[in-house]
Amino acid sequence: MITGEQKKLLNDIHSKIMEYLDNHKIKPTSTIEEIKSDMDISIGNSSDFGQIRNLVDQYLDHSVKTNSTQFYNQLFSGFSVTGYIGELISTITNNSMYTYEMSPVATLLEMELIEKMSALVGYEKGGGTFVPGGSSGNFLAMLAARQHSAPEIMRSGMFGDSSMTAFVSRDCHYSMVKSANQLGIGTNNIIKVDVDSSGRMIPAALDQAIQISMHNGSKPFFVGATAGTTVRGCFDPIEEISIVCKKYNIWLHVDASWGGAALLSSQHKDLLLGSKYSDSFAWCAHKAMAQPLMCTVTLFNNPNILFEINDVEGTEYLFHDGDTKEPDLGKQSLQCGRRADALKLWLTWKYFGDAGYEKKIDHLFEMAKYAEQKVKKSKILKHVSEVFYLNICFQIHPDGIGHSQVGRFTVAVRDELFKNAHAMVNYTEVEGRECMRLITANYELKKEHLDQLFLDIESTADKLLPDFT
Amino acid sequence: MITGEQKKLLNDIHSKIMEYLDNHKIKPTSTIEEIKSDMDISIGNSSDFGQIRNLVDQYLDHSVKTNSTQFYNQLFSGFSVTGYIGELISTITNNSMYTYEMSPVATLLEMELIEKMSALVGYEKGGGTFVPGGSSGNFLAMLAARQHSAPEIMRSGMFGDSSMTAFVSRDCHYSMVKSANQLGIGTNNIIKVDVDSSGRMIPAALDQAIQISMHNGSKPFFVGATAGTTVRGCFDPIEEISIVCKKYNIWLHVDASWGGAALLSSQHKDLLLGSKYSDSFAWCAHKAMAQPLMCTVTLFNNPNILFEINDVEGTEYLFHDGDTKEPDLGKQSLQCGRRADALKLWLTWKYFGDAGYEKKIDHLFEMAKYAEQKVKKSKILKHVSEVFYLNICFQIHPDGIGHSQVGRFTVAVRDELFKNAHAMVNYTEVEGRECMRLITANYELKKEHLDQLFLDIESTADKLLPDFT
Repeated sequence: MITGEQKKLLNDIHSKIMEYLDNHKIKPTSTIEEIKSDMDISIGNSSDFGQIRNLVDQYLDHSVKTNSTQFYNQLFSGFSVTGYIGELISTITNNSMYTYEMSPVATLLEMELIEKMSALVGYEKGGGTFVPGGSSGNFLAMLAARQHSAPEIMRSGMFGDSSMTAFVSRDCHYSMVKSANQLGIGTNNIIKVDVDSSGRMIPAALDQAIQISMHNGSKPFFVGATAGTTVRGCFDPIEEISIVCKKYNIWLHVDASWGGAALLSSQHKDLLLGSKYSDSFAWCAHKAMAQPLMCTVTLFNNPNILFEINDVEGTEYLFHDGDTKEPDLGKQSLQCGRRADALKLWLTWKYFGDAGYEKKIDHLFEMAKYAEQKVKKSKILKHVSEVFYLNICFQIHPDGIGHSQVGRFTVAVRDELFKNAHAMVNYTEVEGRECMRLITANYELKKEHLDQLFLDIESTADKLLPDFT
Repeated sequence: MITGEQKKLLNDIHSKIMEYLDNHKIKPTSTIEEIKSDMDISIGNSSDFGQIRNLVDQYLDHSVKTNSTQFYNQLFSGFSVTGYIGELISTITNNSMYTYEMSPVATLLEMELIEKMSALVGYEKGGGTFVPGGSSGNFLAMLAARQHSAPEIMRSGMFGDSSMTAFVSRDCHYSMVKSANQLGIGTNNIIKVDVDSSGRMIPAALDQAIQISMHNGSKPFFVGATAGTTVRGCFDPIEEISIVCKKYNIWLHVDASWGGAALLSSQHKDLLLGSKYSDSFAWCAHKAMAQPLMCTVTLFNNPNILFEINDVEGTEYLFHDGDTKEPDLGKQSLQCGRRADALKLWLTWKYFGDAGYEKKIDHLFEMAKYAEQKVKKSKILKHVSEVFYLNICFQIHPDGIGHSQVGRFTVAVRDELFKNAHAMVNYTEVEGRECMRLITANYELKKEHLDQLFLDIESTADKLLPDFT
């Protein structure tokens, strides 16, 4: 039972959220000093509900509005009504995913999603689990590959073994390197394979790297292809890579944290051609599938490996086998307590249906292509990478800016855009060139938003030009 | 901008949630068949908002009401208004914790909490990070210990090293064993140290186990004490264990996922005496601190180790150093994208203040003591373990039930209680004896709720007795 005062507070917060959702203008940066002078962040004294209300206002005021159509900064953007509702209901029920008994409906929904997504990847009897993000997903896949290749490590450790090597592209996500550290493989044993000019791993180079590694006495056990690289959004040629993996009998993982959503589109799913030949597949629905953080699955062609790596002693207090046939998902998860991340994605998928989701994804591709055209038509913008997916990388290079200054100028325009609350777009390097990395992941994005963005970029560039020349 | 139809849906869901919070009656179990016949869980076709509303109703109907005062089944229970609000605002803003720029306020709040909680542990210049749960927290601590003991592993892997051993008590959480697998240590190199009759690790036995391990040529690198064991809720003697660790220069971790909350109480914090001598400390606020899942911190006496283990290549696209002095918390986290779990805990702490939180924790202790008294006074209940914290373990053993049947009878009563929606209480084994494990983690719990529970237990036992005799 909740009290009248609590109800009033919850009603107020609900109204606040509704107002917040009505206003998509991105917020300007606040400095640490500005936040601290506006908001008492110290802990110790108690507050009444009026103060809690104010603190929520202050939090909203100083946070980035990632639901804004002006937010192009990360591999996510926007707001999903059903995703939000899913999160509310997960929170209010607070069922934990370890046992069916504790989480009956969420267990069934997670299983339904895993089956659906496995089928999209092309696995015939696939399985998997939700994990706390893409980094965790890649880690889990590499752990499974290590287990597959050297199952004795689970009990006796890696001591005295000959070294093992993992292969990824130069453009892979850094979680691959982190995973090698965590697993005791060592970051030096992550071999970065060359990419072609658009950023795709070169299968022949992979083949050669594997041979060199074997020649040096190391045991190749893992290849990580990337489907949607973080910077350029390009897709490694999975099918060709799978042939190399098969030749040497090496586990093939696809890090589709970012690009997995392309599987929803019949027009674009061929970007992931060959994914059915992989052994594992990581896919974040909180990226191009409009879910709130976190919502990631890791899928396995043969899910038995998950039970194997999670088969440890001391779980009797939690898993009561008896004669029930109920599925306890905790038996295939590295986490013990786990939030029901499945609900939000399931509700959203129920709402859109397959066809609706496909339309949304196709729309994001169209927006990326439109942005690419804007770059190509602009006199001051130079694209630095072909657009395959939702990443548009370009430099701002008006007349009067020398080649050595263009990177710094691009970043200055980017910072100024954010400072003036025009838009938030990230910057990064592509082959040594500093550039903007624009992401079109917001389902509400329209051509006119992009038109406005490019106008803002050009006028900001004009404004800053005198300082640089 | 949201549409009128979306607003209406969100208003309806809000009303639904307010109703849900007004009714604390725990739900009976639903079978898989019952759920599937009531609810179309298949994905493919689209649904309208009316159908989404119904699906939410069905989800609520078939989920366990963990906010109920009848829910004693897990190491959490109840509902926190401020925790819930924090989750709503985290979801709606969807700021990700990797960079200050992306998550300005949440970054400052996380830092404030880490500082506060480190000080409570007794660390002078402590630091740490939020992680996706207690298992992740223990894993991170063991990784840090491995790094501390053998920093070369990070780059070159564990190959060819002599074996390393970790020490925990027989009653530790299974995530310790899982961590050893993940880290390449091997589960056989987790040495389980004997506990005394109440379940506390015996320091002399630890000392001896370390000596044996060294004698066998292994390198002890990690001791994990448990503060609040999962089953019995007992606390390893941290101070005495720390003396052993110091003697051999071994990393001391405290798994206080469950028991950390005792630090909030001046009356009870001595259960964790000596925690200031530890190197790391895991603490789940989603357990006895009434936060929704997940809300865990891992604290470090010397937080530099976090930067060390997360110092990998390929992060330039995300962390832009330049000349800013802004803290990017992603540099000390294994996760890349990360939800703002800090907000909910921070809002709750602001609301209660230190004194308010202390009162809540003291109340939970009182409820546990009261339940223990009920067990001791009952003619049919036999307590199987001393109560130190919020776990009460007991068997149901009325006249007419033989010693060989008491475990099975206890479980039968437990299942019947849940089936009839009286209460949900877990069962487990303590030294080979099957027993109920009652948890008093709900801030709304009152003596009359426990009175009713024990009446229900006794009447259910009466009812089932004829089937067993």
